[in-house]
Amino acid sequence: MRALEEKIVAEGKVYPGNILKVSSFLNHRIDVDFIMEMGEEIARLYRDCGVNKILTIEASGIAIAVGAAAHMHVPVVFAKKNNTSNLNADLYSSQIHSFTHNRDYHVVVSKEFLSPEDRVLIIDDFLANGAALNGLLDIVAQSGAETVGAAIAIEKGFQHGGDELRRKGLRIESLALIDSMDDGAITFR
Amino acid sequence: MRALEEKIVAEGKVYPGNILKVSSFLNHRIDVDFIMEMGEEIARLYRDCGVNKILTIEASGIAIAVGAAAHMHVPVVFAKKNNTSNLNADLYSSQIHSFTHNRDYHVVVSKEFLSPEDRVLIIDDFLANGAALNGLLDIVAQSGAETVGAAIAIEKGFQHGGDELRRKGLRIESLALIDSMDDGAITFR
Repeated sequence: MRALEEKIVAEGKVYPGNILKVSSFLNHRIDVDFIMEMGEEIARLYRDCGVNKILTIEASGIAIAVGAAAHMHVPVVFAKKNNTSNLNADLYSSQIHSFTHNRDYHVVVSKEFLSPEDRVLIIDDFLANGAALNGLLDIVAQSGAETVGAAIAIEKGFQHGGDELRRKGLRIESLALIDSMDDGAITFR
Repeated sequence: MRALEEKIVAEGKVYPGNILKVSSFLNHRIDVDFIMEMGEEIARLYRDCGVNKILTIEASGIAIAVGAAAHMHVPVVFAKKNNTSNLNADLYSSQIHSFTHNRDYHVVVSKEFLSPEDRVLIIDDFLANGAALNGLLDIVAQSGAETVGAAIAIEKGFQHGGDELRRKGLRIESLALIDSMDDGAITFR
C-alpha cells in the first residue's frame, strides 16, 4: 500500500537495533482516517474469503482491526497480555517471547469468543520474527477455528518471521514490507 | 442511548461487588458495527465543539475512540499504562488508583502528541469512581490543552465519580448511565 510506505518514510523514525517507531500514526497517536483506509484495503484483500471474525492483540493491533472490521462487518476479538501463566479452563493461552523486551508473556482469549465454526483473519501492527503471530495462530488452532490468513500493517521482511510462515502455507498480506533499514534508509520489497 | 442499554441488559453479566462484564461486545470481543454506532452518537453529541483530538486509555478505550474518531475525522491519542513511575521529560504522566485491582498504576502520554492548541474529547469505556478520567484530565491539564468534555460508554452512576466531576463543570456524556444493579437487576437513570 503505497500511501503507507510514504507515511512510514515521512513520519517513521529508525533507531539502532532495527527499531522503527511509528508512534505518530499507529502506536500512540492514531491517524484514524488513515487507519480506516488501511482497514478498507485489508477488507479488499480478504473479500470473498468467508472471514467471520478478526483476531488481534492488545493494544496497538486494536485500531487497525477495528478499521478492517468496520468494512468487513465482523466482530473483533483481542487477545489480552498476561505477565503470568494463567492456567484457567475458560481461556485459550499461548506463550510469546518478546525480543524487544527480552522476556516471555502470555496471551489469552476467552473460550466463549472463538469456536470451531469461526473463519479467522489475524491482524497485527507489526510482523518481525513472527513470535506474536505464532502465538495467535496457536490460539486459533486450540479453538478448532480456521485461520484464513493474516493482515499486517508493517512487516520487517529482514527478520524473516513472515517468510517462514508463508513457506508453511499461511497467507500473509503486509500493507508495507520493509526489506532493510540500514543506516536509517528504508527499502521496501 | 437506548440500543446500548438494551445490549447491556441482554449481554452484560453482573457479578458480586457491582462488577459489570460486557466482554461480549466491548472489552474482549468487540461488536464493531455497534461500536461504530456508538461512535456516531458521540460525534453527534460533540459536533460543533471544535474537538480536534480524542484522548483515551489502553486497551478497551481504543475501539470506542476509533469509532468516534472515524465520524469526527480527528486523531486519537491513547494513554499507555505503566506499572512504574516513569520520570521521563518527554512524557506527561499521572498516577491512577485501580479500585478493581487495588493498586496504583501510571498513565503516560508523549508530549509530542498533546499541546496547548488542542481541544480534547476524552473517551473511555467505563466511568465509576472517576479515577481513570481524573488521570486523563490531569494529563490534558499538564499539556495546556483544553478538555471539551468526556464521552463514556457505561457510567456506574452509583459510584458518583461522574457526578463529582459534573459539579466541577466538566461536560460528561454517558451513553448508558446505570443507577443501580442490586441483585443483578440493572436500573438506568
